[in-house]
Amino acid sequence: MTIDTPSQPCAFPPHFCVADPKGPQNPSGYSCKNPDQVTENDFAFSGLAKAGNTSNIIKAAVTPAFAPAFAGLNGLDVSLARLDLAGGGVIPLHTHPGASEVLVVIQGTICAGFISSANKVYLKTLSRGDSMVFPQGLLHFQLNSGTGPALAFVAFGSSSPGLQILPFALFANDLPSELVEATTFLSDEEVKKLKGVLGGTN
Amino acid sequence: MTIDTPSQPCAFPPHFCVADPKGPQNPSGYSCKNPDQVTENDFAFSGLAKAGNTSNIIKAAVTPAFAPAFAGLNGLDVSLARLDLAGGGVIPLHTHPGASEVLVVIQGTICAGFISSANKVYLKTLSRGDSMVFPQGLLHFQLNSGTGPALAFVAFGSSSPGLQILPFALFANDLPSELVEATTFLSDEEVKKLKGVLGGTN
Amino acid sequence: MTIDTPSQPCAFPPHFCVADPKGPQNPSGYSCKNPDQVTENDFAFSGLAKAGNTSNIIKAAVTPAFAPAFAGLNGLDVSLARLDLAGGGVIPLHTHPGASEVLVVIQGTICAGFISSANKVYLKTLSRGDSMVFPQGLLHFQLNSGTGPALAFVAFGSSSPGLQILPFALFANDLPSELVEATTFLSDEEVKKLKGVLGGTN
Amino acid sequence: MTIDTPSQPCAFPPHFCVADPKGPQNPSGYSCKNPDQVTENDFAFSGLAKAGNTSNIIKAAVTPAFAPAFAGLNGLDVSLARLDLAGGGVIPLHTHPGASEVLVVIQGTICAGFISSANKVYLKTLSRGDSMVFPQGLLHFQLNSGTGPALAFVAFGSSSPGLQILPFALFANDLPSELVEATTFLSDEEVKKLKGVLGGTN
Amino acid sequence: MTIDTPSQPCAFPPHFCVADPKGPQNPSGYSCKNPDQVTENDFAFSGLAKAGNTSNIIKAAVTPAFAPAFAGLNGLDVSLARLDLAGGGVIPLHTHPGASEVLVVIQGTICAGFISSANKVYLKTLSRGDSMVFPQGLLHFQLNSGTGPALAFVAFGSSSPGLQILPFALFANDLPSELVEATTFLSDEEVKKLKGVLGGTN
Amino acid sequence: MTIDTPSQPCAFPPHFCVADPKGPQNPSGYSCKNPDQVTENDFAFSGLAKAGNTSNIIKAAVTPAFAPAFAGLNGLDVSLARLDLAGGGVIPLHTHPGASEVLVVIQGTICAGFISSANKVYLKTLSRGDSMVFPQGLLHFQLNSGTGPALAFVAFGSSSPGLQILPFALFANDLPSELVEATTFLSDEEVKKLKGVLGGTN
Repeated sequence: MTIDTPSQPCAFPPHFCVADPKGPQNPSGYSCKNPDQVTENDFAFSGLAKAGNTSNIIKAAVTPAFAPAFAGLNGLDVSLARLDLAGGGVIPLHTHPGASEVLVVIQGTICAGFISSANKVYLKTLSRGDSMVFPQGLLHFQLNSGTGPALAFVAFGSSSPGLQILPFALFANDLPSELVEATTFLSDEEVKKLKGVLGGTN
Repeated sequence: MTIDTPSQPCAFPPHFCVADPKGPQNPSGYSCKNPDQVTENDFAFSGLAKAGNTSNIIKAAVTPAFAPAFAGLNGLDVSLARLDLAGGGVIPLHTHPGASEVLVVIQGTICAGFISSANKVYLKTLSRGDSMVFPQGLLHFQLNSGTGPALAFVAFGSSSPGLQILPFALFANDLPSELVEATTFLSDEEVKKLKGVLGGTN
Repeated sequence: MTIDTPSQPCAFPPHFCVADPKGPQNPSGYSCKNPDQVTENDFAFSGLAKAGNTSNIIKAAVTPAFAPAFAGLNGLDVSLARLDLAGGGVIPLHTHPGASEVLVVIQGTICAGFISSANKVYLKTLSRGDSMVFPQGLLHFQLNSGTGPALAFVAFGSSSPGLQILPFALFANDLPSELVEATTFLSDEEVKKLKGVLGGTN
Repeated sequence: MTIDTPSQPCAFPPHFCVADPKGPQNPSGYSCKNPDQVTENDFAFSGLAKAGNTSNIIKAAVTPAFAPAFAGLNGLDVSLARLDLAGGGVIPLHTHPGASEVLVVIQGTICAGFISSANKVYLKTLSRGDSMVFPQGLLHFQLNSGTGPALAFVAFGSSSPGLQILPFALFANDLPSELVEATTFLSDEEVKKLKGVLGGTN
Repeated sequence: MTIDTPSQPCAFPPHFCVADPKGPQNPSGYSCKNPDQVTENDFAFSGLAKAGNTSNIIKAAVTPAFAPAFAGLNGLDVSLARLDLAGGGVIPLHTHPGASEVLVVIQGTICAGFISSANKVYLKTLSRGDSMVFPQGLLHFQLNSGTGPALAFVAFGSSSPGLQILPFALFANDLPSELVEATTFLSDEEVKKLKGVLGGTN
Repeated sequence: MTIDTPSQPCAFPPHFCVADPKGPQNPSGYSCKNPDQVTENDFAFSGLAKAGNTSNIIKAAVTPAFAPAFAGLNGLDVSLARLDLAGGGVIPLHTHPGASEVLVVIQGTICAGFISSANKVYLKTLSRGDSMVFPQGLLHFQLNSGTGPALAFVAFGSSSPGLQILPFALFANDLPSELVEATTFLSDEEVKKLKGVLGGTN
């Protein structure tokens, strides 16, 4: 047998695994689509071309580019998202449990920061073209500190970075108020007020 | 050359890297101690034998078993900590950016929970011998829900799991109050009150 | 699209993969259970609450907490087991091919040790609260060196550490006696005697 | 000992390793800077704000954001680069041996493509906001297929992706012409012509 | 419950995942065959015993030992291939996107080399018993520089190293000639000539 | 700045880390040699060209190709060794804690086998050109089952696989006889006899 000459099939597999959302999932990701059915469209994604809708409580939107929508990312070591921040917009404190994040500002001015395991705060005001890194799993935020809208792209070191937004984790689910209070030191009044605003129960 | 016969040195290295805290650190951990100076004491640790001091605001203590104190863990895929919770004690909401955690209750009753990336809450009341897992990087807490003191051991899937305790990250450093407020929706009054309690500035 | 507001589904997956033992397995673990059917019980395990049965040849028991019994561990970087050693009990020399192990003594006195790739022996006598690490894949043992029963918990840096117990690997399967002898230098008499005791054939 | 209360140092390390270019390097990256000397500037980088100089043979420029210039990326799972393509500009066929790449177009129109291990070609024309992924180690290119200049940012799933540009690997070093010819089937005339253009010797 | 005594099933899984090519694939590899149906033949492979057919354009053959043909390699960290080079034979410039390669010469004389990310060339002439390493993802080649046939075995640090052979990637698929030319600086005449030889189109 | 044009240094590092045995070690390996001092000789190794000395108790020799002797392997995902087995030679039962192994027979006939975590035995008789895999961390052996000498090469999926040879671990160090006996069920007589043969003490 010869290697990969034009007339012979190659014994080496195609070295990617495009997501087939209909197959079983696994800790390593989605099942692989039949390579014969993979096309160039599996490796491209147009979903970040349009601004997210910022008519919401945070005046901001995160538009992710992940599998299975961006099927070619399945199992790889990168993914992407778009951040739109209207005037006054903020991506609240949040973490990505599965990857570090690097951000680059495309438009506007963004104040960003993170808090380390040693409880130190690192803050920067970033302009067009500036970039910043947020190490894996640490609380960080982005805030439009300019006058007009801001746009940034962020990349993650995994196709499955995960996301946990702090105020939603605290106030937008059914975690009982008394547990929120006991584990954060927040007052009952404050917790109940924010549960009301964000739709939490209990 | 023969392999590892009694009279010949083995060409295979000892397959561990005991921390030498005086050498340079690196993304993979501490420098390795000279293998000739490694002893059995590098692989054992007695620091978890004693209860932590729970005379503090959370009525609880976390005693870690990490390198360099527990030098033999350096670069390996596990580490350990001891949780002591006095009556009413709580380990506030926190994350470990670098590893999952598994807990086993040794004494007392512990209410534990975590919040997923999909913002669901998973809560359990755990008794002696019960165990629970907290997937990497997700907010979780442990709270003494019994009448006496509680004791648990927790293990991490890395020698460097990291730790970020939410109320300290929010209220016990110099992150400006207005940024805390903008990125959490908490009120100025609440933030300043808790900064006062926990020692935060700005 | 906005991020994770209460009224909108989150585009980020839940960042865990609870084992569905009915689906296909894969090098990364079990298939994932439908997230809608995951409950808090998948992340907790009560199987370590009860002492293992030590009425056996080693006067000891290892009770593992692994997937699929502890379904939430699937694909994560940690797992757990309970060691019960009656008086005179011993966990024979064994290895975990897939993870390092860290042990903490809860009751009694345990003599533990491991042998390095450089063929050095590291031995410690451990009391209540003492911990010890056994680097991945190296032969180690635990032995009750006290007067009463001993109890320990051990954690592994993988949800799939594996286990190979030396005397069972040598004497409790159908590995032909002549191969055991040729590859260990043990005598035919000794091998056949122990095959008899432990149930090996050939 | 209590955890991380304001008045006590935290026993958990800061969970990042900012590059100290003066210390020894290691397979995992640069040595870590003393955490006390780390500032917010280590986690931010302004080097991508300015267009690269495209007055060159490829009418294009790649501006990387890597350690040690972007010191906070050291040892993490992400990095970034900026692509500037003047009219007619091209990033020649190249690979990143250490990471996958994801690209997002900021300005202009880019024709991009890669070749799989099964020798299939995946080509896309990308407009502003479109993204595309290039799996690790596979040959790919980006070409300005519009009328004006084009700008894109690319992210990598490693702080050390590496780069190998095909025509420079073939024609811009001292790899002897006869070896280039024997291993590519290119003619002696073609190889010598391109060595002349790109500065190769031998 | 006791561990792994002869009369009791072991709760620890077998710690390998033999490929079942009929099940779904995943980023981590093939599905696992039912352990009860695994035999010793899954862990052995005789396909490298016979010389590959070198009657082809490169006078060489690469015979891989990968899953699913060598089913026991599935998901592991190694694989193997056999290189046969007739007189004048050459393995053209190629990369393995997923693993480093180490080669050992069994017969004959091989000139091998690779090009680094810094565009340096490392060349060696290797005789029987000599070995050489080609770091992951970098362009390398092997060429019979002796008088008779040459034989080598190569190992990879992954069960799925992938393969991309440069002249086939350039000239043996449907990548349009103008794109080959624009991204390599090769002349139209040269590209079309080699597409003709190697069977490429467009 | 442009990329890697002939007259400009490349901002991408060389993507390997050749071992400098004089610098500090780390969990990820040796320190990196200055890239300017790296030569082709760092990536090649002639130490496997000569048969190992089999005039010893096992009539066999393992010749490893590891860093720092084979300096270019440092931190990579592969390494190599040569096995020489004289008539009757045997590589006793052993494990590699840090990698799987794949073997290919070059000369002679080898009976090889391993024991799984489920305590099953997988045995094969291998002839010239046959290969076999031994999954990470599991006990395995190789034995010359032919009439003349046998030669094999083995590759590992790590530059630091480690090695633990069972009879040497049991009988060729200072592990006290009573501990060997208690943890293996071997008789005192047998243990003392073999300690005598292999040079163990205590």
